[in-house]
Amino acid sequence: MERGAPPDVLLQRPWLPVSISGVQLLAKSWFGETEYHVLLTDMQCVWGERMDSADIEKRAQELNRRLRAPVKAFFSHLSEVVRPALTGSGGGEDGEATISVTHQDDGNIGMKLKSELAGLPFYWEFHCTPAPVTVVCSQLVRPLLAMSFLLQRQVEQLGGLLGRKDAEIHDYRENGATLSRERLHTEVFEERTYREDYMSKAVPLLCSDQSDALRFDGDLQQLYGAVVSCTNSRKRKLSEEPSVEETLVDKPNNISSLGGSVVDSGAAQDVQLEAAGARRPNRPTEKQSLPSAPAERPSLKPKKKKVGLFR
Amino acid sequence: MERGAPPDVLLQRPWLPVSISGVQLLAKSWFGETEYHVLLTDMQCVWGERMDSADIEKRAQELNRRLRAPVKAFFSHLSEVVRPALTGSGGGEDGEATISVTHQDDGNIGMKLKSELAGLPFYWEFHCTPAPVTVVCSQLVRPLLAMSFLLQRQVEQLGGLLGRKDAEIHDYRENGATLSRERLHTEVFEERTYREDYMSKAVPLLCSDQSDALRFDGDLQQLYGAVVSCTNSRKRKLSEEPSVEETLVDKPNNISSLGGSVVDSGAAQDVQLEAAGARRPNRPTEKQSLPSAPAERPSLKPKKKKVGLFR
Repeated sequence: MERGAPPDVLLQRPWLPVSISGVQLLAKSWFGETEYHVLLTDMQCVWGERMDSADIEKRAQELNRRLRAPVKAFFSHLSEVVRPALTGSGGGEDGEATISVTHQDDGNIGMKLKSELAGLPFYWEFHCTPAPVTVVCSQLVRPLLAMSFLLQRQVEQLGGLLGRKDAEIHDYRENGATLSRERLHTEVFEERTYREDYMSKAVPLLCSDQSDALRFDGDLQQLYGAVVSCTNSRKRKLSEEPSVEETLVDKPNNISSLGGSVVDSGAAQDVQLEAAGARRPNRPTEKQSLPSAPAERPSLKPKKKKVGLFR
Repeated sequence: MERGAPPDVLLQRPWLPVSISGVQLLAKSWFGETEYHVLLTDMQCVWGERMDSADIEKRAQELNRRLRAPVKAFFSHLSEVVRPALTGSGGGEDGEATISVTHQDDGNIGMKLKSELAGLPFYWEFHCTPAPVTVVCSQLVRPLLAMSFLLQRQVEQLGGLLGRKDAEIHDYRENGATLSRERLHTEVFEERTYREDYMSKAVPLLCSDQSDALRFDGDLQQLYGAVVSCTNSRKRKLSEEPSVEETLVDKPNNISSLGGSVVDSGAAQDVQLEAAGARRPNRPTEKQSLPSAPAERPSLKPKKKKVGLFR
């Protein structure tokens, strides 16, 4: 049974920098009606967990022996309590809920939640195991390579523009123009020299900043959003074409469609790009709204009826 | 037993675009004295294989029943024959050797080699399984995020420089200067407008190019090389510090060293950067030289002694 968010939906979520019990991570999460899909990374590894309704019910019973409420009754509580921690939008610790992260000997990551539901303790545990390599590729590797490629083209474009401004300046000066303030003078931009300087000086300096590994800042978030929007536009167009995997068997001279699930020829939609351009993914208070019907939010039972949730 | 290249050595290798029996991949490889480590990716998944001397000997016997030569005798042949295919430096098919790639049902990738050694057929198979997520992170995710971050800073820097040139041009024009050729006129660079235009127009256009997923071109290769050189400089300095993993257990307020194996505070060495700057990783004929002692290259026995290699 296919669990968790449709891959497209999770891909559209930004990687948000979070700090849970002092552990710095990037997190992506999707909470459906009674299911969730969480991805975490510290850039050394990527972990994930997908749980459907049955899984959640079973674990909830194991962790909360007195609980007898259906999943829908407590799931909204669970997602409300854990959301601040997974979106970096709040302490996650408000006196009623505590969340902690543990790195386990077997390479897994555990997140333990203690909260209060209808006056009684409610416990939850996320058991995150190393994500499949294909997930790491779709959620991180391909978008990051696309981002690098796009940024490199931007650098070239700006370099070209600098060259044109130098030509304009040269024309003014050749015709006798002088600056009223000499400090406004700029050197001629020489692309190769600039790049070599950047490689030899700026790169080690920037690399020495220890938070680099998690520096998925606002600009990069925006570019990530634009890139994954393209990906989804492409996927919808490709849905009736042969899968990429079928093209991997010995076929000479024709596998230029490899990676076709990310990119392909043809016009792209820009509907989602408008959304991507307008979206500011570094707002940690971003709500987890789905393109499809939002998750039902059953109201919590008032305390006097707590016997309805717990035995 | 720790097999394969020391992680640092493999990290320094570029991801080279290769085409094996028509399948487009990025490949990294290291051939030691009688061992190898190969990584392949089509950006949908990442596969790898590490084999030591004993593994190689065993498989060689299984595939070549008549073979009775020690590993050293045929290993140099194996690495010579497969190198063009894994570095994209030649057809790999010269009438004597053929290499094919097969995508298997179990998600693994196989590469079959048929060559001629001392007048008789010599077969080899690479059995590549999905790489550990930690390897994907160190070889792809972290470098690509660092590259994106560095390129983004470059874009900002160039934007700032454009602003300064606009200020210079404005000064000339304010003092009455005019262009001798109006076509040299440039618009004032407005960073936000530029970025929004780029997101909405250039991004979908560039994403629609189907070879994007594998476009690890010369400039990106160079940046990758610079970034991983920093990584190794940092690692050597950190070798006596507590491991990153130890810092992942509940410790509030102190995990700024997360990702420390990639980056850390302090001065970086620029020795390797000179090498990185000078290196042109997109030369497919790059030799697989190791920083340590090169692999021993035993000479092939002449045909008249073929009974020495095969029964």
